[in-house]
Order: sequence, then C-alpha cells, then structure tokens
Amino acid sequence: MKKNSMIERKNSGLLIVISGPSGVGKGTISEKLIEKFNSWKSVSMTTRNPREGENDGEDYYFVSVDEFENRINDDKFIEYAKYNDNYYGTPKDKLIEHMEAGIDSILEIEVQGAKNIKDMFNDAILIYIAPPSFDALRERLLNRGTESEEEIDKRMNIAKKEIEYLDIYDYVVVNDDLELATREVIEIINSEKLRTSRVLKVNI
Amino acid sequence: MKKNSMIERKNSGLLIVISGPSGVGKGTISEKLIEKFNSWKSVSMTTRNPREGENDGEDYYFVSVDEFENRINDDKFIEYAKYNDNYYGTPKDKLIEHMEAGIDSILEIEVQGAKNIKDMFNDAILIYIAPPSFDALRERLLNRGTESEEEIDKRMNIAKKEIEYLDIYDYVVVNDDLELATREVIEIINSEKLRTSRVLKVNI
Repeated sequence: MKKNSMIERKNSGLLIVISGPSGVGKGTISEKLIEKFNSWKSVSMTTRNPREGENDGEDYYFVSVDEFENRINDDKFIEYAKYNDNYYGTPKDKLIEHMEAGIDSILEIEVQGAKNIKDMFNDAILIYIAPPSFDALRERLLNRGTESEEEIDKRMNIAKKEIEYLDIYDYVVVNDDLELATREVIEIINSEKLRTSRVLKVNI
Repeated sequence: MKKNSMIERKNSGLLIVISGPSGVGKGTISEKLIEKFNSWKSVSMTTRNPREGENDGEDYYFVSVDEFENRINDDKFIEYAKYNDNYYGTPKDKLIEHMEAGIDSILEIEVQGAKNIKDMFNDAILIYIAPPSFDALRERLLNRGTESEEEIDKRMNIAKKEIEYLDIYDYVVVNDDLELATREVIEIINSEKLRTSRVLKVNI
C-alpha cells in the first residue's frame, strides 16, 4: 500500500500573465513555457482590424463590435477593456475549462488587462518582461524592420508609460539573454507551484 | 559607455527562513544554499544546555539566563521566544549587517520564530520543509539512531502540532528526494530575487 503523502496540492492550473513592451520577446518566452509546462495560451478577442500577417484564432479572434458587445452582455469575458476605440477581451469559457483541468494558462496581455486579471484572481502570477534598456528595445524594433519609425516612436512611448505600472506585477524579468530570461520565468512558475496557498490538504 | 540598465534591483540580502520537523533535512538543504548563494546562516542563541555533539557558536550560542535577559533589555534580538523554560533568540546585529551588505541570510528556526520574523519583515521568505509522510519522518528518526523511542514520539508530536501553522509559510517543499528538494528551494530563492518589490529604480 502506498503511504499517504503528507502534502497534497491543488490540481488547478496556474494563471500566468505575461506583459511587456512590443518587441521584448514575450511571444518567444510564452512558446517555451507552453512547451515546458504543456500549458495553454489564451487568445484574446478584439474588434480592431487584423494587421498584415496576423491570423484569426491565432493572434486574436477578430470580431465585429456588435459581436463583441453581445458577448459582453452574455458575460463571456473574464475581462475586457477599450483602447483607441477598439475592444480587447479575454474569453472566459476556455480559460476556466483549462484551469479546472489543471492546465496552466498563459495570458499575453497588456497592463490594464493584467490589472483586471489580478483584481479578479488574486493568485494570478503577473510577470513583466523588460528589455535591458529602452535603447536596446528601440534597436530591436528597428532590426525587426516590421514597423515604421513613427510606429516605433509610438510603441516606445507606450512602453515608457506602461512601465509606470510595473508595481502591479509580481515579478520582473529582464530579457537580455533569451535563454536566461526563459529559465527565470520557468523558475518563477516552478516555485509558484510550491506556494502554501496551493496546498489542498495535509495528511497527518 | 555602458547603457543604463532599465531595471535596477535592490542590493539588500534576502531573509530566508527555513523550518520543518527534526530529521527532515533542513540542515543539509541550508548548507547547499550557503554554498550556492554565498549566503550566511544565522546562529540562534539559547539558554538551554548543549546536547551531545553540539558546539557553541555553531549549533547555537549557549548563554546563561542572565546574559540572555541582558541582551533582551539591550534590544539585541530580532526576535526571541521561550519554550519549556528555555529562551531562544535570533541575534540582531549580524543579521542586519549581512542583509545590508547584500548577503542572503538563512534562519533555521521553528514556527513561532518564523511567525515573529514575518511580522517584522514582511518580505522575509518562509519555506517549510515537509517530509513525504509522517511515517517516513518517523523512519528517518529511527534510522538516524540518535534519539530514544520516547524522544522520537515527542518530536513526532511536535511535528504534528507545528504543521497546523503551515499557512504562515510562503512555500512548502517536500523532501522526498534531497536533490530535487534542494533544487526547488534554489528556484524559490532565484525567483524571489526577481520580485517587483525588489526593483529599486527604473531608468527611462
């Protein structure tokens, strides 16, 4: 007969929020997490138009304003917000489904969405991926070559504004070396799984 | 010229509290941490008599009740408590010195001491090392062969009582496999160093 483990942990999946400026490497780090933890990445829904190269159901679910507002009324979002006249939201059903099945969920969302999630799920883990420096971030965006100078300036301004809200995040990981940054995020998730708040039962 | 790092972190050392029942392997794990992080382990002071094999200044500082009480009056303890008519305390000076020098401090103390530390230092990291099961713990104590059956029963009862206070700890690590448990504690410490609360300054 197998002895009873003293510590039994909750089986629910972690809710992991990854934010950071455009170009910082969030997407690459998220992909490595999905691989490592067999986790799942939530796809946000938006009413903005797809950009070149973006695919429906992959980068976002692209829907009409009418459809989005119907879903708001039907309570289909964990959280949503409006920026520049466009809605952005996190669909509820799939997220709850995965969490209950014990699968860690990754949300790649921006500051306001992250704050909404933390307000609702106190045990969500908020990780901000920061560039080594703002100059380095600008260089990366330039090297990527997918944005105009004007667009890059705009993103830099957003990044500088967002960083003021850094303290809503639990952790900040600097992505100077992708391998190191990925390892650090993995260590954060590993250690979050060891939290006492995730202990379900103690067998005495 | 070196570019300014965007994120500058505090240089202060972490305060790491390790608790767990007698025989669970706290000491071995602490030693590995000292090696890995070049950290420092605080030696507690007590008025109880040294047991066989215990060395002054290593296992404890052994002092008289008078000396202990003088030190209480001189505010020389971070925290102290009395059990079974014996005082136990954590000397203040060295701990503060090491923290300020950016050296992580390890405190191997029991539940009441851990709670006192957390009340004072909200960012102290409290880690409870648990045995895989209570039966496994009893076996380990039996195999160690340094305690009488009666003494083992007493320790088992203390362990069962202490575990009720598990929720004051931030993390619980099960020591079934020493190498894994050590790695888990190292990951906890690594990730705690990445907390947003340890960000000193953001250079924009």
